[in-house]
Amino acid sequence: MPDCIFCKIVAKELPCYKIYEDDDFLAFLDIQPIAKGHTLIISKKHYNTFSETPVELLSKMIQIVHKIGQAVQKSTNADGFNIGLNNGSAAGQLIMHTHFHIIPRFNDDGLHTWPSIECSEEEFKKINQDIKNNI
Amino acid sequence: MPDCIFCKIVAKELPCYKIYEDDDFLAFLDIQPIAKGHTLIISKKHYNTFSETPVELLSKMIQIVHKIGQAVQKSTNADGFNIGLNNGSAAGQLIMHTHFHIIPRFNDDGLHTWPSIECSEEEFKKINQDIKNNI
Repeated sequence: MPDCIFCKIVAKELPCYKIYEDDDFLAFLDIQPIAKGHTLIISKKHYNTFSETPVELLSKMIQIVHKIGQAVQKSTNADGFNIGLNNGSAAGQLIMHTHFHIIPRFNDDGLHTWPSIECSEEEFKKINQDIKNNI
Repeated sequence: MPDCIFCKIVAKELPCYKIYEDDDFLAFLDIQPIAKGHTLIISKKHYNTFSETPVELLSKMIQIVHKIGQAVQKSTNADGFNIGLNNGSAAGQLIMHTHFHIIPRFNDDGLHTWPSIECSEEEFKKINQDIKNNI
């Protein structure tokens, strides 16, 4: 995809701190890391978003996330890690080429989950039914 | 697993707002939602963490996340969604039974990604090599 930064990294037209590469996937360091060792995993083939990515490819991709996640945690001595995927710009996706984030986490690192909202039983029941209707 | 809330939900010993169920997986509403429609996807078989979950199961699980994600976005009229998985309590995992989060997102919903840190070229190179050594 022309003008896609990640496609240029795959094509070696742009540099990266490469962690892992195989026929289908590439893993490299996020250059705007939330924590040291913050790693991105992309498919070499361009898909804009998770929603547009074939599930067969995602099934292979999550195995790479699992493999690299262990290496990231071990090498950073992290106490855990977050896996994140932002589907669409509203969700914080900056590069429109499907990618998973692996973010090393440490006890008391000061990063907090987003606050929860109030939801009534009627609202739970309605949204529950709405989602089921759309499967 | 005794005393696991999610295993009790699978066994129907505790209620949930069920979205989807098949032989291997269950999806239901998070009762402390970050946004309306915030959904959890679990495997019926208990594994404490992502790291401990077999990759073959994760490969199937991400397909369910994909399917349910579309339904969540459509039914909430969301502009996108986040997929999150917290691996370990340091990463914010509250229930020690592997689960994916699907969080509907809206343009200008006020939720912000965590801030990035400074990292020198030497630090990038070192952590890059350390992770590669641990794959």
